[in-house]
Amino acid sequence: MPFTMGPNNYGKSGIRLVRVGRDTPRHVLRDLTVHTALSGDLDATHYTGDNTGVLPTDTQKNTVYAFARDGIGPVEAFAERLARHFVDATPAITGARVQIEEHAWTRIGDHSFTRGEGGELRTTEVAYDGTAVRTASGVRDLLLLNTTDSEFNGFLADEYTTLPETDDRILATAVTATWAYATAPDYDLAFSAARGALLAAFADTYSLSLQQTLHAVGERILKAVPEVAEVRLTMPNRHHYLFDLGRFGLDNPGTVFQAGDLPYGLIEGTVRREEA
Amino acid sequence: MPFTMGPNNYGKSGIRLVRVGRDTPRHVLRDLTVHTALSGDLDATHYTGDNTGVLPTDTQKNTVYAFARDGIGPVEAFAERLARHFVDATPAITGARVQIEEHAWTRIGDHSFTRGEGGELRTTEVAYDGTAVRTASGVRDLLLLNTTDSEFNGFLADEYTTLPETDDRILATAVTATWAYATAPDYDLAFSAARGALLAAFADTYSLSLQQTLHAVGERILKAVPEVAEVRLTMPNRHHYLFDLGRFGLDNPGTVFQAGDLPYGLIEGTVRREEA
Amino acid sequence: MPFTMGPNNYGKSGIRLVRVGRDTPRHVLRDLTVHTALSGDLDATHYTGDNTGVLPTDTQKNTVYAFARDGIGPVEAFAERLARHFVDATPAITGARVQIEEHAWTRIGDHSFTRGEGGELRTTEVAYDGTAVRTASGVRDLLLLNTTDSEFNGFLADEYTTLPETDDRILATAVTATWAYATAPDYDLAFSAARGALLAAFADTYSLSLQQTLHAVGERILKAVPEVAEVRLTMPNRHHYLFDLGRFGLDNPGTVFQAGDLPYGLIEGTVRREEA
Amino acid sequence: MPFTMGPNNYGKSGIRLVRVGRDTPRHVLRDLTVHTALSGDLDATHYTGDNTGVLPTDTQKNTVYAFARDGIGPVEAFAERLARHFVDATPAITGARVQIEEHAWTRIGDHSFTRGEGGELRTTEVAYDGTAVRTASGVRDLLLLNTTDSEFNGFLADEYTTLPETDDRILATAVTATWAYATAPDYDLAFSAARGALLAAFADTYSLSLQQTLHAVGERILKAVPEVAEVRLTMPNRHHYLFDLGRFGLDNPGTVFQAGDLPYGLIEGTVRREEA
Repeated sequence: MPFTMGPNNYGKSGIRLVRVGRDTPRHVLRDLTVHTALSGDLDATHYTGDNTGVLPTDTQKNTVYAFARDGIGPVEAFAERLARHFVDATPAITGARVQIEEHAWTRIGDHSFTRGEGGELRTTEVAYDGTAVRTASGVRDLLLLNTTDSEFNGFLADEYTTLPETDDRILATAVTATWAYATAPDYDLAFSAARGALLAAFADTYSLSLQQTLHAVGERILKAVPEVAEVRLTMPNRHHYLFDLGRFGLDNPGTVFQAGDLPYGLIEGTVRREEA
Repeated sequence: MPFTMGPNNYGKSGIRLVRVGRDTPRHVLRDLTVHTALSGDLDATHYTGDNTGVLPTDTQKNTVYAFARDGIGPVEAFAERLARHFVDATPAITGARVQIEEHAWTRIGDHSFTRGEGGELRTTEVAYDGTAVRTASGVRDLLLLNTTDSEFNGFLADEYTTLPETDDRILATAVTATWAYATAPDYDLAFSAARGALLAAFADTYSLSLQQTLHAVGERILKAVPEVAEVRLTMPNRHHYLFDLGRFGLDNPGTVFQAGDLPYGLIEGTVRREEA
Repeated sequence: MPFTMGPNNYGKSGIRLVRVGRDTPRHVLRDLTVHTALSGDLDATHYTGDNTGVLPTDTQKNTVYAFARDGIGPVEAFAERLARHFVDATPAITGARVQIEEHAWTRIGDHSFTRGEGGELRTTEVAYDGTAVRTASGVRDLLLLNTTDSEFNGFLADEYTTLPETDDRILATAVTATWAYATAPDYDLAFSAARGALLAAFADTYSLSLQQTLHAVGERILKAVPEVAEVRLTMPNRHHYLFDLGRFGLDNPGTVFQAGDLPYGLIEGTVRREEA
Repeated sequence: MPFTMGPNNYGKSGIRLVRVGRDTPRHVLRDLTVHTALSGDLDATHYTGDNTGVLPTDTQKNTVYAFARDGIGPVEAFAERLARHFVDATPAITGARVQIEEHAWTRIGDHSFTRGEGGELRTTEVAYDGTAVRTASGVRDLLLLNTTDSEFNGFLADEYTTLPETDDRILATAVTATWAYATAPDYDLAFSAARGALLAAFADTYSLSLQQTLHAVGERILKAVPEVAEVRLTMPNRHHYLFDLGRFGLDNPGTVFQAGDLPYGLIEGTVRREEA
């Protein structure tokens, strides 16, 4: 008599899809990484290895490529098409989650493109249970840095506190933002508006704590995109330490910094539409 | 009037702690990476930048090093000491989560040690809310591979299915396992028992699907460690493709494989103590 | 009697330097990673641990931060200042090599900046032996992709060849380019010209092999920057495989590709000013 | 009239080869990553895209898998078989370099194996020019740490020196070692002897500088394996900083350390058989 299965799912991760639109001499390039995850009544495969309810992850991969044949559109729409297909076409599948990261390339010719290795990602995650679609989009690996207008003062002190207060520091972070849509917007427009709000809020908020900046960013996105219900933000604090040049007879008026690596602060929070 | 904060926390990630026990000429080496995350009523810092309720992440880091002075013990106990301290010593803090990864070194002398870069990690996560402690431990980056005794047959087929059935394949995975304790065991003994059960179950299960192996692993851990309530397993399917040597007039009787990279299957599930 | 030392050097790697220019309200941000390597008569430290000729790598790090106090200028000039200092100020040091990678940030406000994680790097390596300075600059992690105008035909075939010839494929690479200067140019102008030539040559060369593209890129840089003596190029061939959609009753007219990961082709070569 | 090509080569990198020996129920697992690089008269493909002298990197990959069919043996022998084949079978190819990294798995059953993600690698590089074979082998990602018996004193001081002298520190490094063979040994025995000498020298050398340790390691390998002509060593100094616990009223007698990340010292050197 086996032990019970709790929540579980199976899918294909890291599906690297590149699509070339050739309708005109000016080609259109899309570069996505897709991850699928399906769920259903999977007791049989877990308890006895009976796979009659299992759609192979290889099939899920094939589906992604096949669905790209006729165009992708916004990543949110593509993820939704896939999620709906998996659930609606196969009775054994009752839930699907499709995640996509998109790499943006910069055009340098009609059929030529460039980008740096790595780089900021546009993301989406779409979940479908046969009835409702939930869509959350965002960005990842977006670095932001303010060289001033950031303080950190008036914090709790206990016996292990040695951090000096500061009224001028570098504030730097690598934002992961995910905004959940209550209703479907024009996804490309909404993405642009949300990303723009994020950057603007980071740049023009005089910051007394990274938490305050986080809230300002969330608030700005909510104001910019009415369809967004809440914003989840992960903002590592990438510390920059003023280098002690006094030992060499030099001053350092906020000029020379050592960028830290490990450890780093980590500030996480969700900002919701309801007013406090 | 600001928008409301939902769940949020702040802490220090990537605290690299190495401790040398010198009580005898045969030194004892511990190598941990610690991550802290605190929560409380943090509306003030989010809405106005008032930090009177914020214990700096730098202080959290200092605390980790200070607490290591007198010994670490099992990582679960060390994480619990830290979590309890943060909440019990500071009224503004109402919740703490401490995660630890431990690197195991192999002794090659009284004060000399070796390991490979990367490597399997022992992990724990302890959460404390002022009342209850919840502890979950596990492993990460543990690679397992069976060269045979793995089939995959009888699965669902739709119009996008091209995967052939197989009655002999390589089964390889990089296990992330997390087992939640209902009551506190002897943590080091429990870890050894759980890890041993994991390896044994993987090695001696004739697998009809990776899901079946996942369930077998969870079940074996539950049987081996009575204090464990449930086991969460993430098992990427690291595909190994039989290389087509027929094109060169050679057979390939399960001998030569191309190890795949992207994409990979991803099987995730939780196995619970309640019997089905 | 010890065994002899062959070539050797010591230095500090991964010095993360961020400099903020605050001369005007519109701050200037520089973000460098610096690596130093010194050499000299180091037999004593190798054979007996006598360190009288060793300038600690910690001192090398301090020097980098101190020298940044009064401005950086082009990375080539900064690297040269450092290399000359190490050798000219310390008799025990007879050679210095300074390598720098620069991350470019995009301005989004007077004191606010953004970039993606990772990203293209501007690089330089300056070597100084007390007499001559050798400077080589370049780029790294610069991805380029052409969606068409790339063939691969007429190659050698042996018993292990199965690759079909193609007259239309995606050509994608992650360029590492290093151009050695025979004489000192205006480094910032030369960098812009060389990078521009690289992109243009990649985009407008109809490619019969990645080697041909490599040569075209090198040639174009040599033509664009007279001070460059030779160009070393590393161009991994990031394969994109046309996905077989015929199995699903779909055509695939150069539209849907699976981006490959491992293995990848690797094309390396040097192009020199002398005419063939 | 094109600019001249300098040194150049082309090949396939990251060929992931797994071989299962099934001669007995106790299977034998080999896990290699192979990189090939070929050279010859390649002016035609560089200047005009004429590929008649180019053996596709895809063919090189196929060859690696085909050659694994009948067994691999020591990685040095496998690399040599491949290098000789490429040059001897194809007139247009005049040079071949084959590099291999091997992952060691630990047996946990007749057909079951485990290892940690990443981990120490055994490496080899074989070059063949139609006449001579040059073979160099080694290790990579081998971490070593001594908790004591390491000093660093008596070094050069200039105006930027602030490092205090120490007579007891942690010495930690991630060794990359490459030993060049003058004549062919029994490769597996030689590897074991060299690796053992490396570990022993690191563990039992009382170190006055990492350079001294580097020399001791090289010397010990040369003594242990007569066929080795020289040893090239890269030994990053992974700094461990004694954490200042005095601020909390605690002593720290060489017990609690912060493992550093960036920057790190980098010590590189070659030790040769000729006596000084």
